[in-house]
Amino acid sequence: MTFKAPDSLSEQIADYLAERIIQGELAPGERIQEQKVTAALNVSRGSVREALLILERRHLIAILPRRGAQVTELSAHKVQSLCALMSEMYILLGIAVAQRWQAEAELAPFVAIQQRLAESLARQDVKAFVEDSFNVMRAAYPFADNPYLQETVENLQPAMSRTYYLALDQRKATMGEYLALFASLLDAVVARDLPRIRTVLSDYTQRSCQLVLAALAAG
Amino acid sequence: MTFKAPDSLSEQIADYLAERIIQGELAPGERIQEQKVTAALNVSRGSVREALLILERRHLIAILPRRGAQVTELSAHKVQSLCALMSEMYILLGIAVAQRWQAEAELAPFVAIQQRLAESLARQDVKAFVEDSFNVMRAAYPFADNPYLQETVENLQPAMSRTYYLALDQRKATMGEYLALFASLLDAVVARDLPRIRTVLSDYTQRSCQLVLAALAAG
Repeated sequence: MTFKAPDSLSEQIADYLAERIIQGELAPGERIQEQKVTAALNVSRGSVREALLILERRHLIAILPRRGAQVTELSAHKVQSLCALMSEMYILLGIAVAQRWQAEAELAPFVAIQQRLAESLARQDVKAFVEDSFNVMRAAYPFADNPYLQETVENLQPAMSRTYYLALDQRKATMGEYLALFASLLDAVVARDLPRIRTVLSDYTQRSCQLVLAALAAG
Repeated sequence: MTFKAPDSLSEQIADYLAERIIQGELAPGERIQEQKVTAALNVSRGSVREALLILERRHLIAILPRRGAQVTELSAHKVQSLCALMSEMYILLGIAVAQRWQAEAELAPFVAIQQRLAESLARQDVKAFVEDSFNVMRAAYPFADNPYLQETVENLQPAMSRTYYLALDQRKATMGEYLALFASLLDAVVARDLPRIRTVLSDYTQRSCQLVLAALAAG
């Protein structure tokens, strides 16, 4: 495999493994053996160990003393816990945008995402739809202007993305519903209606997580 | 130096460096050179690199491509950002305790901490007081029962602890004030008064951070 230049090698190894975990190719509970990764990617053991620490920070693996690394389990309790925290993070971001936008032109990035979501819905492209849904929170970062919040959300995002992959088919059927929620969120931001932002984002996360929990119970 | 047994070597190196950063022996902006740490602690370079990733996760250092690791800066904006996020985490924990305690006996750990805080105040032991104040959030973890929230708070705690070290003298003068806030918090938890929990915790964090910001501005 070839790695792109800008990130450190260990970041690139982490990204590669992260994608495999997110998409379910590496299953919950599966052990990740340093030697195997080292041999498969033809990289140093040190780089792999660093990559594993990065994946642990992103909540995708657990590193156990003397037992090595394994892909974190996806129990109903873990999914509910993740969703509960992520929901609060989304609300903090949403409130920051509502409180701090000055000219409506500053909200253009959100309108552009809304446009792309509508296009993904028209194409029935659920993967593009899910990826763009995470860009909503990223477009909110400059308003929150909080490096700790941003880093916390970025560390949680891969785990959230992983849960969504469990219920992609179900999400496909609900893209229209999410788009309606997003329109409602934008309205609330423009109106600086903080309680409604809380309600809409909480509904959005709960609905997403119900799909994941149903897929988990079925599968 | 001798390391205690249970943690991995890189965790132990991270803990050692973390203490030095928290207590200000390693100054904001100071470079941490892998080779120097390797030589000083007589450990492998790989272990040091892993330790640096753990410190980055704890928000104490930044690792910059080709420029190595440096102790993160403590600007007013960083302190305010950290306090804003930590305040929300405290509120989530406080609300979890208020919503989920069943028998008052479950609140015994908080009463025990309150007792110890009063003893530290009597001894004028501000370091013990500050350390115990972080045990309040830890006593709340079982009520929240959320591994992601817990990990997020634990990753933020060292950075928060570091800011408190900047204003230890000022905190010494305000221990009585904090103890009164804590009594008020416990009352609100017993009464399951969620808005009051939000207010008390928000006041507590704001007050703490004002002290830090004043110390930072003074020099």
